Amino acid sequence: MFKQKINIVDTTLRDGSHAVSHGFTVEQTEAIAGGLDKVGVDIIEISHGDGIAGSSINYGFSKTHEMELIKAAKNKMSSAKLAVLLLPGIGTIEDLEEGRENGAEVVRVATHYSEADVGIQHIEYAKKIGMMAVGFLMMAHMGTPEQIVEQARIFVESGADYINIADSAGYMTPDDVRARISLLKNSINIPIGFHAHNNLSLAVANSIAAVGEGATYIDASCRGLGAGAGNTQLEVLSAVLDRMGYNTGMDIYGAMDVAEDIVEPIMYRPQVIKTAPLMLGYAGVYSSFLLHTYKAAERFNLNPRDILVELGKRKMVGGQEDMIVDVAFALSQKK
Amino acid sequence: MFKQKINIVDTTLRDGSHAVSHGFTVEQTEAIAGGLDKVGVDIIEISHGDGIAGSSINYGFSKTHEMELIKAAKNKMSSAKLAVLLLPGIGTIEDLEEGRENGAEVVRVATHYSEADVGIQHIEYAKKIGMMAVGFLMMAHMGTPEQIVEQARIFVESGADYINIADSAGYMTPDDVRARISLLKNSINIPIGFHAHNNLSLAVANSIAAVGEGATYIDASCRGLGAGAGNTQLEVLSAVLDRMGYNTGMDIYGAMDVAEDIVEPIMYRPQVIKTAPLMLGYAGVYSSFLLHTYKAAERFNLNPRDILVELGKRKMVGGQEDMIVDVAFALSQKK
Repeated sequence: MFKQKINIVDTTLRDGSHAVSHGFTVEQTEAIAGGLDKVGVDIIEISHGDGIAGSSINYGFSKTHEMELIKAAKNKMSSAKLAVLLLPGIGTIEDLEEGRENGAEVVRVATHYSEADVGIQHIEYAKKIGMMAVGFLMMAHMGTPEQIVEQARIFVESGADYINIADSAGYMTPDDVRARISLLKNSINIPIGFHAHNNLSLAVANSIAAVGEGATYIDASCRGLGAGAGNTQLEVLSAVLDRMGYNTGMDIYGAMDVAEDIVEPIMYRPQVIKTAPLMLGYAGVYSSFLLHTYKAAERFNLNPRDILVELGKRKMVGGQEDMIVDVAFALSQKK
Repeated sequence: MFKQKINIVDTTLRDGSHAVSHGFTVEQTEAIAGGLDKVGVDIIEISHGDGIAGSSINYGFSKTHEMELIKAAKNKMSSAKLAVLLLPGIGTIEDLEEGRENGAEVVRVATHYSEADVGIQHIEYAKKIGMMAVGFLMMAHMGTPEQIVEQARIFVESGADYINIADSAGYMTPDDVRARISLLKNSINIPIGFHAHNNLSLAVANSIAAVGEGATYIDASCRGLGAGAGNTQLEVLSAVLDRMGYNTGMDIYGAMDVAEDIVEPIMYRPQVIKTAPLMLGYAGVYSSFLLHTYKAAERFNLNPRDILVELGKRKMVGGQEDMIVDVAFALSQKK
């Protein structure tokens, strides 16, 4: 039987960085990157949780400069490709150049699902300097499948090597994933990837739903280490894909050992689904809304969960935090 | 839009009993049962993890006699039905009678997926004394959909009110669930239920797959508290079903609060997917095999994970633990 090759993109050292308050050390990074390389992960993403140059008062300072971590990881890697995430507006072309000098071979250019155009120059530059370039669409649950295709095409035309759809709020059900990936598969002719969050406990299921529709790059992290409820649990995903007859090329027992012996001991807390991430996934909103929502709820004597659901319905995006008070006021009038 | 009613069966105080070494107190049971009743759970299952009369040197002693817990819970419940699990051979007709006297209105008679006949008398007796009776088929991944239907029919003919399929090892993928539930739905004319374990991080996904094929009773527990990797996380499931347009009749915010405020503080450890439960789910074998497997692996210098996978392939069942050495010997000869 022909087994479809699925590329595994590990994001323990990038999305997982959020879950350790950007506190990864050189030693930890070497152990994790070296371990993941050995078990056959295809791409290892390393940078501040908010992408290169994310270390700041706004997004949290990295304990160790990410370029040091990238260089250290690269030294321990022999087969996997090293990737960085870049959010235009946070990271720049200069940061990307520095990442490449330190060993990055792949850049994932991440924009809001409706703003691929702000990433065109970064994709084009990466291709010019010989890097693999990925167009990464965040909060993709907010866009219709047609809108996602339209934005993906912008990245395709810029020269992206594959398109990655991110369920950043952990909002999607498997049906939501299938609708987006299948239309993409029928509309563009470069590979498709998927990045899940586990807010609704559906990260592995959504990832296999994406694979079922033709996605061939799947993001995951050891023990699911990542923002909020975390990402797709790497060692579980590789076991499930193997059982379903896909070829990840991975040593699945080895992946279990990296997760249990190297990553688990350095985690700050287990990646369980508590109320806050569950509500964010249920409502489909940014985690940055939480604090503002609690304040507005107190001021207008509302249940903060009702405000989150209303923010999701209105498709509020990051940067619109000051409108939360208006939404809360409107809700309080309706009561 | 018509919203299909899905009945939620909470098993925090039964399957979750495994995860707290059968240590639930009267106070904890009152708080959990009372909380679940208030948020609109339909059935609350209470008994030793291995069913009524499970308290023993073999299965672990209960800290508090389950009949005391059942009576205490009943006092705090006003709308949910109280259920007990009964494994023929462990629990008897007399235990069932005692459970009913203390407040149980439902019995779930659980047998290995291929041995429904050992539960006939318990289903018939329960119906005779006016209880709701459920035929519960364990380790259902080991049977083909046709075999599951054949066994379910035995329970249907005995008078069961619904049939519950249990993925006891947490082995199934959503496709495995769909194959079994859809054939059952087309073959029997009483309601169908599903009980998941989260070994492959697919418990919520498998539960919604079951609902998609027509299952109307779904097991879940607060924070997923249950044996091994735990069960379907109740508060997540209720949020996902709501988002998908099903009617659980539940106060989903209230369920989040019961999980976070009442259950989480009494958990011994978070319900995360470590290597041992992952391997059991990947191989599809009983947790009782683990210790024997480690011993055999040491004796024959094998990787215990290879032995587990072989045991799964050979469809070994509980009680066959002494054959693990034979399997290990055969594997060592092949090497």
